[in-house]
Amino acid sequence: MAFQVPSRPNEQPMSLVVVGTVAFDAIETPFGKTDKIIGGAATYSGTAAAYFSKNIKLVSVVGDDFPGEMINRFTQLGLSIEGLQVKKGQKTFFWSGKYHEDMNTRDTLDTQLNVLLDFDPVIPDSYQDCEFLMLSNLMPQLQKKVIERIHKRPKLVVMDTMNFWMETQWDALMDTIRYVDVLTINDSEARQLTHEYSLVRAAQKILKMGPRYLIIKKGEHGALLFNEKQVFFAPALPLEEVFDPTGAGDSFAGGFIGYIAQTRDISFDNMKRAIIYGSAMASFCVEKFGLERLIHLTHGEIDERVHQFIDLVQFDIALV
Amino acid sequence: MAFQVPSRPNEQPMSLVVVGTVAFDAIETPFGKTDKIIGGAATYSGTAAAYFSKNIKLVSVVGDDFPGEMINRFTQLGLSIEGLQVKKGQKTFFWSGKYHEDMNTRDTLDTQLNVLLDFDPVIPDSYQDCEFLMLSNLMPQLQKKVIERIHKRPKLVVMDTMNFWMETQWDALMDTIRYVDVLTINDSEARQLTHEYSLVRAAQKILKMGPRYLIIKKGEHGALLFNEKQVFFAPALPLEEVFDPTGAGDSFAGGFIGYIAQTRDISFDNMKRAIIYGSAMASFCVEKFGLERLIHLTHGEIDERVHQFIDLVQFDIALV
Repeated sequence: MAFQVPSRPNEQPMSLVVVGTVAFDAIETPFGKTDKIIGGAATYSGTAAAYFSKNIKLVSVVGDDFPGEMINRFTQLGLSIEGLQVKKGQKTFFWSGKYHEDMNTRDTLDTQLNVLLDFDPVIPDSYQDCEFLMLSNLMPQLQKKVIERIHKRPKLVVMDTMNFWMETQWDALMDTIRYVDVLTINDSEARQLTHEYSLVRAAQKILKMGPRYLIIKKGEHGALLFNEKQVFFAPALPLEEVFDPTGAGDSFAGGFIGYIAQTRDISFDNMKRAIIYGSAMASFCVEKFGLERLIHLTHGEIDERVHQFIDLVQFDIALV
Repeated sequence: MAFQVPSRPNEQPMSLVVVGTVAFDAIETPFGKTDKIIGGAATYSGTAAAYFSKNIKLVSVVGDDFPGEMINRFTQLGLSIEGLQVKKGQKTFFWSGKYHEDMNTRDTLDTQLNVLLDFDPVIPDSYQDCEFLMLSNLMPQLQKKVIERIHKRPKLVVMDTMNFWMETQWDALMDTIRYVDVLTINDSEARQLTHEYSLVRAAQKILKMGPRYLIIKKGEHGALLFNEKQVFFAPALPLEEVFDPTGAGDSFAGGFIGYIAQTRDISFDNMKRAIIYGSAMASFCVEKFGLERLIHLTHGEIDERVHQFIDLVQFDIALV
């Protein structure tokens, strides 16, 4: 049975809370380099989600060096910024990195935590209607604080994390993972988390750590969705050029949770669709530096790209 | 529209000629090692194809150290062996390799060309009804000789090759590629052949070298099929364990051309199906050492595996 996709964000009174970093990035790729541009996991996730879902609420922190113009842009995108703390006299989180020729690996050139150092996520009362929660990459103990500070358990909690926390905050990470429904990590992190090379075995182990669903992101090789009994694979779109991979994983997660929030359906079949939409958002993200491509999309462009995904993988075999 | 798959090889009077090595292999993987076992590109391709297509004709060469029992096995599988030369007093081609922990890379420990050194492929008169031609990995000038020695142009010529020929026989390789319809190579080889990192750009260049279709094999990351206007992606099945990758690419190619020969349909849509069947055969191949798993399959097992591929990638999004 075909599923009809609402083509525009609906107006239902649920909310999607997106927690994570809002940052400055300086990026170098084989195609060029940027000065300080706007980045951060929550920025990418929130921006991608905004194409699907209204009533998105941001939890993050910036310094007073962060441009008010960009904060206005968040508002224009439909993101509530009541939970975005602006710290006077402090500086915004800054990350700088350089991608290698293959675009799959990068070196971190500089990390200045700044306002992140003593970030205490505040959940405004108006965020307590949270139905879907996206915990973008952040210190695991802060992710857990957010879970605790939302009084009514959301319908779905999605958490992204990274190898750095596995190396430095193992116990806190394990303690947070227990409370989430969907974990998203990349393939090397899944291996690192479980000491299993086979992603199937890694998934089996991770699904015993708490999450009921696991998304393993393989970059240009697509993404896998696991639950205890099923597995789904979505390819990445083969692109002529990957210009800047920064934020691709966060855009993916944003498209995923945005679509789920829009449809309010957390079945495995709907998660499959959400992964296709997430993959589409990631494929846009990498086409230009930073947020440049992601911020100027039309719903027609998104639909067209989803069509490309359908053409890419669909085949018809009817077994007798 | 769903396509009904004939579930058993049909009896139509076409023939599929499979050319390539029949060899002894000694393989070491993290799971164990073998003594000399039967291997070779044509062995794997022919065996995989035999599950789909009758009237398969083998062109290869072995020494008189090759077990008659295995030659009988070829016959039992339905392979014609009139084009299989047995060289008295000579030894069969031998390859020995060791796989690394990740199973994606391997070291060649020993290569003894033996009978391959002066192999001159003979095409028996009974092979001149060739409708489909599979040129498994072999010296490019020998692949070209086979094309020349088949008098009537086959409906589809599929050629596999490898990086070694790019490094040592560039001109002969370019000269052979011009005459084939489908080229199958892996992702690093596509990059090596074109000096393009992007597989989309690499494909565009390769499709100007002669082939109308290109299959880029990405191992555990699946396979891409390109023609000038379309692209199709088939994932590899996520497996708990890859036991021995030897022959996976050849089994893939055998399943692909076997299915095409069975259905006698060379449309892009049918090639998609053929790639799924090829991927299924490759997924069996890697489950045990050498031919062990591939040789003992049932049609029910193959159908079940194809079902797993359908479940793995199918989703339903209906755009308005």
